[in-house]
Amino acid sequence: MARRRRLYVPDLPLAGGTVTLPRESVEHVHVLRLACGAEVELFDAHGRVAVAALTQIGRDRVECTAEPAQVASAGGQALTLVVCLPKAAQLESIVRMATELGVATIHLASSERSVPKLAADGQKLERLRRIAREACAQSGAARPPVLVGPSALAACISAAPVTARKLAFWERASQPLPAAASGAFAEPEVWAVIGPEGGLSDAEAAQLEAAGFALTTLGAHILRAETACVVIAALLLDRMRVPRA
Amino acid sequence: MARRRRLYVPDLPLAGGTVTLPRESVEHVHVLRLACGAEVELFDAHGRVAVAALTQIGRDRVECTAEPAQVASAGGQALTLVVCLPKAAQLESIVRMATELGVATIHLASSERSVPKLAADGQKLERLRRIAREACAQSGAARPPVLVGPSALAACISAAPVTARKLAFWERASQPLPAAASGAFAEPEVWAVIGPEGGLSDAEAAQLEAAGFALTTLGAHILRAETACVVIAALLLDRMRVPRA
Repeated sequence: MARRRRLYVPDLPLAGGTVTLPRESVEHVHVLRLACGAEVELFDAHGRVAVAALTQIGRDRVECTAEPAQVASAGGQALTLVVCLPKAAQLESIVRMATELGVATIHLASSERSVPKLAADGQKLERLRRIAREACAQSGAARPPVLVGPSALAACISAAPVTARKLAFWERASQPLPAAASGAFAEPEVWAVIGPEGGLSDAEAAQLEAAGFALTTLGAHILRAETACVVIAALLLDRMRVPRA
Repeated sequence: MARRRRLYVPDLPLAGGTVTLPRESVEHVHVLRLACGAEVELFDAHGRVAVAALTQIGRDRVECTAEPAQVASAGGQALTLVVCLPKAAQLESIVRMATELGVATIHLASSERSVPKLAADGQKLERLRRIAREACAQSGAARPPVLVGPSALAACISAAPVTARKLAFWERASQPLPAAASGAFAEPEVWAVIGPEGGLSDAEAAQLEAAGFALTTLGAHILRAETACVVIAALLLDRMRVPRA
């Protein structure tokens, strides 16, 4: 258990120096009962990490001295999940597990059969981002995923770059996910669309196909959104060259 | 949504005939507001299924007429997870997701660093079995996993048959899970040991290796027990010939 405790800061200075921790990391310092002089690892939203020593600990303010920052996740392929909105509790669990696995980006999409019609609600999004930072601190993932949206599924689709390998999971697709033996993905990015519990509509499936997304299926079992997301992330990362820090 | 509702009965008569539903399925009939004459699919703990029609619906008693039963999961390889006890809420989530994915058996094991020292508590086990039956009804999985234990990790290890492919996940193993390209498992059964949040001890890892379990790792990320179990089940089933009903 010689592993350093990890604390989040929004933006690590590349050159190192004195860093003032944000409120949520101050809370962690108190919960973990860290003392002055303790060595920690700082991580930020951009995939940078730095070793630091706590130099001042107050009730509301903690300072530390950071060494020069390093980029934690150089190279490798990035996985983007487009998640059609499930119920709130499942969404939190999806964000937590996707962060642990090293998903790069999560687009929240509203689709025809999404149950919650999540408006662009900054408060809810901030709660999800905080869950991601906590999962990142605990798991050692290089950085928390970027959380985008919510926006219409069509807008998410059009945001996918031309160079990405694009997959959409649809229970009525005839083509299974490329079998284990068929080799790894070569593209720099992989995008995966995961429908809501009611599934993608026929029109949405057609739109996705027209936009270059290969329709694929995990099999006949009906998975809850939570299970589907983590299984899809695991199977796709398994087929990618992702640096395992 | 032409899919038949699925209801659990402990033991389906192979020849079909009149079947009286157990209490939990009676509750489902009421929750789903099913009426006399409704067609349902019955499933049991042994992987048998049968189409049936509801013939009598009372507050506490529901009867139906079942067609001859069929074996849902003939052939294919079976996956057994040996799960070192995590916290209760995570264990429920593990059972739910493993059932959706089609895991055949879950052994609950107490290991050196398991936090909860779960005694052989019939009530808790019955609660987990009920969660598995519910997940089975919703997901269309062939049957709920058999839940065994809790028992000492050493006892679980010695229950693994000689013919099984045996893997133990240990964060300090040097060998990663066979890469996607390296082909599928050939053995009739695959057993996977998943340590507790504190990890397996050195002594336990040595015991596992001596018992024929290959020590393997998912990478340097620290996954919570919940995430680790579903990721491991997904990656192993991906390398197996599992009938996707």
